[in-house]
Amino acid sequence: MVKRRRQEILIEMQKMIYLDHNATTPLSQKVIDQIPSILQAWGNPSSIHWSGREPKNLIRNARQVLATALKVSPLEIIFNSGASEGNSAVILGIYEIFKNSKNHFMCSQVEHPSVLKAFQHIEKLGARVDYIPVSRKGELDLNFFKKHISSNTALVSVMMANNETGNIFPIAELVKMTHAVGALFHSDCVQVLGKIPLNLSELNVDYATLSAHKFYSLKGTGALFVRKNSPYQKFIFGGGQERSRRGGTENTLGIASFGVMANLLDQVVFRQKELAQLRDHMEARILLEIDGVSLTGNQSARLPNTSSMVLRDIDGETLLMSLDLKGFAVSTGAACSSGSPEPSPVLLAMGLSRAEAQSSLRISLGWETNLGQIDFFINILKEVVLRLRNISQKTNMKELSLMREQSL
Amino acid sequence: MVKRRRQEILIEMQKMIYLDHNATTPLSQKVIDQIPSILQAWGNPSSIHWSGREPKNLIRNARQVLATALKVSPLEIIFNSGASEGNSAVILGIYEIFKNSKNHFMCSQVEHPSVLKAFQHIEKLGARVDYIPVSRKGELDLNFFKKHISSNTALVSVMMANNETGNIFPIAELVKMTHAVGALFHSDCVQVLGKIPLNLSELNVDYATLSAHKFYSLKGTGALFVRKNSPYQKFIFGGGQERSRRGGTENTLGIASFGVMANLLDQVVFRQKELAQLRDHMEARILLEIDGVSLTGNQSARLPNTSSMVLRDIDGETLLMSLDLKGFAVSTGAACSSGSPEPSPVLLAMGLSRAEAQSSLRISLGWETNLGQIDFFINILKEVVLRLRNISQKTNMKELSLMREQSL
Repeated sequence: MVKRRRQEILIEMQKMIYLDHNATTPLSQKVIDQIPSILQAWGNPSSIHWSGREPKNLIRNARQVLATALKVSPLEIIFNSGASEGNSAVILGIYEIFKNSKNHFMCSQVEHPSVLKAFQHIEKLGARVDYIPVSRKGELDLNFFKKHISSNTALVSVMMANNETGNIFPIAELVKMTHAVGALFHSDCVQVLGKIPLNLSELNVDYATLSAHKFYSLKGTGALFVRKNSPYQKFIFGGGQERSRRGGTENTLGIASFGVMANLLDQVVFRQKELAQLRDHMEARILLEIDGVSLTGNQSARLPNTSSMVLRDIDGETLLMSLDLKGFAVSTGAACSSGSPEPSPVLLAMGLSRAEAQSSLRISLGWETNLGQIDFFINILKEVVLRLRNISQKTNMKELSLMREQSL
Repeated sequence: MVKRRRQEILIEMQKMIYLDHNATTPLSQKVIDQIPSILQAWGNPSSIHWSGREPKNLIRNARQVLATALKVSPLEIIFNSGASEGNSAVILGIYEIFKNSKNHFMCSQVEHPSVLKAFQHIEKLGARVDYIPVSRKGELDLNFFKKHISSNTALVSVMMANNETGNIFPIAELVKMTHAVGALFHSDCVQVLGKIPLNLSELNVDYATLSAHKFYSLKGTGALFVRKNSPYQKFIFGGGQERSRRGGTENTLGIASFGVMANLLDQVVFRQKELAQLRDHMEARILLEIDGVSLTGNQSARLPNTSSMVLRDIDGETLLMSLDLKGFAVSTGAACSSGSPEPSPVLLAMGLSRAEAQSSLRISLGWETNLGQIDFFINILKEVVLRLRNISQKTNMKELSLMREQSL
């Protein structure tokens, strides 16, 4: 009886274990519970009749809660459609404001595509952009940064934590050096929310981007922090929404749902410890029980939920698919996982070889991850890695014998 | 008993009657019913493991359904955060593509603020923009258009139907003249969806913007139609989403909900008749039973759901608030209804005086509006108008006698 129950639990668990929280997060039950009530506030928040009042209140409350959690003013929060919009808006906007005075920009080589591609775009328009290298350990090359920043620098953009390795960059220090030359600082903080405390006031950044769907809330909503008195040029025009900094009827459901989660940001200190314990346990077991695994970026400051590793003689994409068949969702630095035909630019930028990047695995834990899931995952990972290495060895031996035959 | 039941119905009806569908629409019950199931697909549509499959399917289906309804290819649909984004993206993007070759742009004087402000922005960057006048009747000045369009014109942007008057502009004709000089054509079609048939293939526009929340679906979602081979410069960078034309993790819930409504677009022919009957009945009764009312734009082609009128000696904002107290949601061309301190720029552009604009009322019906609501609304409108005119007369007489006293 007990055995059967355990079997059922295992089957249930096996159904789907989500370990890809840096890609997106499952919706919080707290958000799901609130959605029917938020949907009642379907009016246009700009309407001055009854239908506009409740949506306006919901948005005001969400803004207040988020601002309080981030230690900034509600007036400094612009709700938008997500971090790609926020990142693009800041980079394109600052380029436009300064194009006739300051022409130089900097960002790390391991930024999110929305940042990298926005910079590549303004390069075509005439900007000069320096891409700060990151070491194999996951550390930003501060010498490069210091060497290239100048009074001609308009904006520096460095993410607070990297999505693939979890490595945390020294934002407060970078901000000081950036402000010292009179430049502005933007940080993509998407990966931070819900994982480590985020105090935008203390960091003293001019701009920060956040995404609701990386924090157990809905897709299509984000927040852009714009410090009071920092210049800002909007690119979505419209009515006077968001104090005329972002046009378009507000996404009440997305914003209010984000507010529901923002209310839980005081759990982060506790969650951080919990996630780190699980992650450390997982890494210790993997290193002990699976041969030929090396962790990436683990010797530098890291998010507590992220584990990036290279598995010798394993094709990342095949591993991902094999794990997927068993119900596990993970990510890889290999081709296609991001819809891109190239191995992870982040891992390549850190100096990993193409082969290493293509043998890499990213496991990112979340608030609902538990020890049972982790242990179950490792058991399966062991099996799968062993099987894939056997096949690969056999294939290689077959290929080898085929080559020998042909050469005879 | 019957009387009591009727009373209850009246109380229920009185609670809230929504007649402001051009501002936003209530959520369709069909959408509400689907939301719990769509929310299960919380994965990242770009993920290649199990969690990404269902969201990807939902988005693909929505794109297919919408494209079919609009008679275009699914590849020509870009899902985004709404019409303000779509309008801004097209105008800023075309300016950037052509800035070194074609410098001239045109739009009507009565476009949505997202269009007007985007054009004002590119004017600052160096573009030349001609704003096509609209007559008191609501007709576009085609002579002005023909006189100013030239081989130096990059883009013409004219909305298909105006949000305040419902007036419909001759898009197909304008497109022909625009293409004849080698320029591109964009149309803000936000007010059209669900009111009159929309065939983008027939209209032959290069770009069209749509918004989900004006069609009984969620806020924060829109669609931008970009004709195959028409140039397009994205401004939200990111992953390869939307065939690399709009970065950012897709808003699965918003897009799939939009798809639910797009599935109902075959009802439009029937709804159009129904709405026109209700609107015509309403206007006939108002003109018959309330003195000093003149309709705006009713002698030109109009959307079937929209009624714009000037009520002599009535302050629009006071009227709106009085009706709000009785549970009716309407709109006015007066100050503040749109958060702006000025009377409706649309009505002013049509040649109405400030006083007329400030005495104006917009009633916009929707799919759930019924005859009972309309008749009940007119009864209350009569009462309120009578009362406000009495107060206004008394106030005027009081002021008059005060002035007389003071002059003695």
